[in-house]
Amino acid sequence: MNYGVILNVLGGLLRFLGAIMLVPLFVALYYGDSLYPFLAAVVITGLTGILLSHYYKATDEWKAREGFAIVAFGWLAAAVFGSIPFMVDGFSPINAIFESMSGFTTTGATVLLDIEAHSRSILFWRSMTQWIGGMGIIMLFIAILPKLGVAGRQLFRAEAPGPTEDKIKPRIRETAKILWLVYVFISMIEVIALLLAKMSLYDAITHTFTTMACGGFSPYSQSVASFNSPLIEGIITLFMFISGANFALHYRTLYTDRKSLLKDDEFKFYSLVTVVATLLLTFSLWSDMGETVLTALRYAVFQVVSIMTTTGFATVDFNLWTDSAKIVLLAVMFIGGCAGSTSGGIKVVRFLLLLKYARRALFKSIHPRAVKPIKLNEKTVPDDVMQAIVSFVVIYFMIFAISTGILSLMGIDIISSITSSIATLGNIGPGFGLVGPMANFDAVPFIGKMVLIANMWIGRLEVFTVIVMLTPEFWKR
Amino acid sequence: MNYGVILNVLGGLLRFLGAIMLVPLFVALYYGDSLYPFLAAVVITGLTGILLSHYYKATDEWKAREGFAIVAFGWLAAAVFGSIPFMVDGFSPINAIFESMSGFTTTGATVLLDIEAHSRSILFWRSMTQWIGGMGIIMLFIAILPKLGVAGRQLFRAEAPGPTEDKIKPRIRETAKILWLVYVFISMIEVIALLLAKMSLYDAITHTFTTMACGGFSPYSQSVASFNSPLIEGIITLFMFISGANFALHYRTLYTDRKSLLKDDEFKFYSLVTVVATLLLTFSLWSDMGETVLTALRYAVFQVVSIMTTTGFATVDFNLWTDSAKIVLLAVMFIGGCAGSTSGGIKVVRFLLLLKYARRALFKSIHPRAVKPIKLNEKTVPDDVMQAIVSFVVIYFMIFAISTGILSLMGIDIISSITSSIATLGNIGPGFGLVGPMANFDAVPFIGKMVLIANMWIGRLEVFTVIVMLTPEFWKR
Repeated sequence: MNYGVILNVLGGLLRFLGAIMLVPLFVALYYGDSLYPFLAAVVITGLTGILLSHYYKATDEWKAREGFAIVAFGWLAAAVFGSIPFMVDGFSPINAIFESMSGFTTTGATVLLDIEAHSRSILFWRSMTQWIGGMGIIMLFIAILPKLGVAGRQLFRAEAPGPTEDKIKPRIRETAKILWLVYVFISMIEVIALLLAKMSLYDAITHTFTTMACGGFSPYSQSVASFNSPLIEGIITLFMFISGANFALHYRTLYTDRKSLLKDDEFKFYSLVTVVATLLLTFSLWSDMGETVLTALRYAVFQVVSIMTTTGFATVDFNLWTDSAKIVLLAVMFIGGCAGSTSGGIKVVRFLLLLKYARRALFKSIHPRAVKPIKLNEKTVPDDVMQAIVSFVVIYFMIFAISTGILSLMGIDIISSITSSIATLGNIGPGFGLVGPMANFDAVPFIGKMVLIANMWIGRLEVFTVIVMLTPEFWKR
Repeated sequence: MNYGVILNVLGGLLRFLGAIMLVPLFVALYYGDSLYPFLAAVVITGLTGILLSHYYKATDEWKAREGFAIVAFGWLAAAVFGSIPFMVDGFSPINAIFESMSGFTTTGATVLLDIEAHSRSILFWRSMTQWIGGMGIIMLFIAILPKLGVAGRQLFRAEAPGPTEDKIKPRIRETAKILWLVYVFISMIEVIALLLAKMSLYDAITHTFTTMACGGFSPYSQSVASFNSPLIEGIITLFMFISGANFALHYRTLYTDRKSLLKDDEFKFYSLVTVVATLLLTFSLWSDMGETVLTALRYAVFQVVSIMTTTGFATVDFNLWTDSAKIVLLAVMFIGGCAGSTSGGIKVVRFLLLLKYARRALFKSIHPRAVKPIKLNEKTVPDDVMQAIVSFVVIYFMIFAISTGILSLMGIDIISSITSSIATLGNIGPGFGLVGPMANFDAVPFIGKMVLIANMWIGRLEVFTVIVMLTPEFWKR
C-alpha cells in the first residue's frame, strides 16, 4: 500500500473542501449569522490539507487499492471536516458527524430536534453538503483539478453509482466535467422554476440543492409539507424524478439524441416501477385511509418518487399511514433510483438484470442446452458484471441484516431497526416508527448512530469501496 | 406437452395415496372414531387414481416439462385429496386444503382454532401427511413403484430440496429407497427415545412424524410446551437438528464413513449458524426478558433449532418476546436447513455459496485478473449451479415480496404479512403477530389463504418446479 499517495491526494481534497466552505461563510456574512462555525471549518480543513500535501508527495505508483482507500477515506474526511460548523454551532460530536455524513451521502436523516432554531447559514451548509455529495465530491475534484491523470479513472469508478461505466468522453476528466455541468445546468432550471412558483431565493436554492442530490434535507421541520402548494410539490417531484435517472443519459438527451432517455431499458423500468408503486399507494390511501382519489394520488406520487429516488422529502407524515401503504414505500426503499444518478439504493438496473437472470434460468430449465445471453439496451451484459451485481446484492443484504440486528439488540423495535438500516444504507433518510419523516434520529443511542453513519458511508460508495478494506488481501503487500 | 403421461402418472400417484390413507382408517378403527372421513378419502382418491390410469396410458416420451408438471400437480393433488378427511370432519374447503397443504409441505401452519376438539385419528392423519411429505411423496413413489425407469430421475430432481444432487447410488430408484429407509430408521429411534422419556405411544409417533419431517404439527395447541419436560425438549431438539441436515450424509455416516457429517462444509456452517443464533437469542432473552441464563438457553436452543430447521414447534409463545429476540428468529427463518434434508427455507448451502461468491468478488476487486474458483467440500462448484442458486434466491424474494404485498393490501399488519409469507414459503409454520406459535391462520381472509397455500406449494418444490409453469416456453409445443 502506498500511504504517501493516499495522504497526498487526501490533502488536496481537504484544501479543496476548505475552499468550498468559503461559500457558507459568505452566506453567514450576508445573513449576519455568527462567522465562527465557517471560519473554524475553513481554517482547520484548509490547514490540514496544506500540511498533508506538504509532507506527503504524490507518485504515480497507483493500483486499485490506493484508489479505493482515497475514495473511502476521502468521504470519511469530508464528513468529519464538514461537521466542524455543526460542532461549533453546538452539536455533540457524534450528532455533528451524523448530520454531516447524512449530508454528503445525500441520505437526509437528521438528528436535529428543532430545525428552525438553527441559523440560515448553518442550514444552508447542511443543504449544500448534499448538493456536493450528490454528483460526487471526488468527481468534482477530478473535474476541477487537472493533475490526477490516469489514476482519476480508478477514483471515478470507486465513487460512481451503478454497476456499469458510462463513457461519455474518452478522458475521465472531461466526463466528470460534463456530468457536473449537466448537474449545475439542471439545478439552475430548478431554482428558476421554484422562484416562479413564488418560493424565496433561499428556499429555492436550498431545496434545489437537496432535490437534485436526491438528498432530502429541508430547512423546515415540516419538510415540503410546509409550503402546502401543489405546484411546488409538482416541480420538486419532477426534479426528483430527473435526478433519480442517469445523468449521462440527460447529457445525451440534451446534446446528442433527444430520445436517449426513452430508449434506455433502465429508464423505462424505472418509470414503470414508479407508476405501478404510485397506483398501488394511491389505491391503498384511497381505500384504507378514506382520502379522495385526487388527494391520494397527490400524496402517492410525491412520496413514491421521493422514497424511490432516495430523496426522503415528505408532504405528509407517512408514518401515520396504514401498513399496506407503508409496505409499498418499504419495497421502493430497496430498489432506489438509476445507475449514474444522484440517488442511492440497490439501483433499478441491478434489479432489472437480476430479473432477466432469473427469467433465463426458468427458460434454461426447459431448454437446458440453449444459449441465451442477458441483454441490456440490446448489448450482451458480460458475466463479470453479473457477478459483481450478485455480489453487491449479497453484501448489501448482509450489511442490512447485521445493522438491523445490532439496532434491535439495543432495544429498538423491529420496524424502526429495519427501516433505519435501509434508510441509511440506501441513503434515503426517513424510515418508519422512531425514525419517521417528521421525527429524527436523535433518540438512537451512540453505538446505533455509529452503525448508521457507517451504513451511509458504505451505501453511498456502493459497498465494495468500503468493504474491500475489511479483506486481508487489501492490506497485504 | 404429453398430457397423457402426466395424467397416467398422477393416476398412479393417487392410487398410491389412497392406499396410504388406509393407515389412518385403521387408527380410527382402533380409537373408535368416525370412519367416514377416511372411508371417503380412500374411495374417492383410489377411484380417481384408477380411472386416470385406466383412461391415460403411459408412454416413454418424457422431457423435463412433463417431469415438472407431474411433480407440481402431484403435490397439488396430494394436498387436495389429502384434505378429504378434514372436509368430512367439518372443515370448510379452503381450511381443509390449507391444513392438508400445510401438512404435506411440512409447513405446520394451522387453521385449527381448538386442536384438541378433533379426533385422535384426524390429528394422526394431520401428523402423518407431514411425515410422508417430509422425505417426499414422489420419492416414496419412486422408491416403491418399479416402472418409472429413467424418467424417475427427472421427478426426483424436481422434488429434491437443494441445488446439487447427491448421487448415493447410480440408480435413482435405489437412491430413493435408501433415503427413505434411513428416514424410517432414524424415525424409529426417535419413537423409542420419546417412549423412554415417558411419552405415550400416540404422542411419540405423532411427534416423531412431525419432528423428522421438520413439520411442526402437534396434536396439542400448546405444542411441545404442553409436556413441560426438558428431556422431551432435548430429544426433539436433537432430532430436529438431525432432520435439518442432509440425509445422504446420514446414510454415509451410518454406512460408509463415520466422519461424513463433520467433513461437510454445509453441515459445519449449519452448526455454526445454529450456535451463533442460539447465543444471540440467549443473550437477548437473558438481558431483555430477565430470564436466568439457563432458562434463556433452554428456550433459545429449542426455538432456534425449531425455526431454522423450519419445524415450527414452540416451547413458549415467542410472539411475546422482545423485538430483538424476534429478529434472531426472523433471520434464521430465511436461512432454513441443509440441502437434502426434510427442512425448507432457502437452505444453508445456498447462503454459504453466495457468501463465497461475494467474498471472491471482493478478492477480485483487488486482483482483477486472478482466477479463483468457488469450492465446496474441496470441489469446484460449476457456474450453472451458481446461476441456479442466484436465480432461485431472486425468484424466492420476489414471491416473498408479492405475497407480503397482497396480504398487507388486505389489511394485515406489516409484521404478520412479512412473517406469514416467509413462514409459508419457507415451510416453517408459525410467524409473529396474527400468526404466532400459539395463534392460528384461521383469521386470514380467503384470498390470503389462497396466497399462503400457493407459497407452501411453491416453497416445498423449491420455486422452479412451480414457477416454470408460468413461462410461455413451458406450454409451447
